[in-house]
Amino acid sequence: MPVEMKLSRIIISEINESQYVYLKEVDGDRQFPILIGIFEATSIDRRVKKVNRPRPLTHDLIASVVEMLDGELDSVAITDLSNQTYYAKLRIRRDGELIEIDARPSDAIAVAVTCDPPLPIWVDENVLDEAISSQ
Amino acid sequence: MPVEMKLSRIIISEINESQYVYLKEVDGDRQFPILIGIFEATSIDRRVKKVNRPRPLTHDLIASVVEMLDGELDSVAITDLSNQTYYAKLRIRRDGELIEIDARPSDAIAVAVTCDPPLPIWVDENVLDEAISSQ
Repeated sequence: MPVEMKLSRIIISEINESQYVYLKEVDGDRQFPILIGIFEATSIDRRVKKVNRPRPLTHDLIASVVEMLDGELDSVAITDLSNQTYYAKLRIRRDGELIEIDARPSDAIAVAVTCDPPLPIWVDENVLDEAISSQ
Repeated sequence: MPVEMKLSRIIISEINESQYVYLKEVDGDRQFPILIGIFEATSIDRRVKKVNRPRPLTHDLIASVVEMLDGELDSVAITDLSNQTYYAKLRIRRDGELIEIDARPSDAIAVAVTCDPPLPIWVDENVLDEAISSQ
């Protein structure tokens, strides 16, 4: 069963390459960090803080492409953890069909928080167990 | 009339915030630089150098989204220059229709060079004139 989680913290360090986003259970207290790149961390942070963007940034462009091709952003799923790498899917609905696209969690979460309200983030129970036990 | 141009140089400076890509006429010698961000410059550079990417990077995700929604990346157009800002369109073909999506040139060019062969880049003649006269 997937567990609904939400972005709870973004930790941006300017002195090293390791940036983290934390996902926290919506109906519970479990949480875990995902290591992401500085660009993606900044991109997520700007969105959460609703920094004005006069021109579409990269993740805005993804949202525009989906809309212009008659799709609707549905949700994000984090479906696997292998060799310390998380695997995600960006889920798009079109003509009643759910299309899943392979993505890094950082991009998927950046797209999720581009939407208003943000897209739900679903984490597979086994991924959540493994993420928590490896902390 | 739009003029076909191609990416001719990427200048990445680690000591300041100003990175440039140069576009050069395919059938001529005119060229001009576009100021872009470090992330976009790095993203374009990696693609041109065909650096191996085990997981889809952000512009790969754009290409996947287009493909999964039955579109076909067609070309990039640079259509305006206003207050030193270039405006671009990412053009996608679907069901015989050409869909144009507002984008920054850096994202549009990064998507262009993600494709193999790279998408053609069209620059409006008046934009080219203005870009060259303002150098």
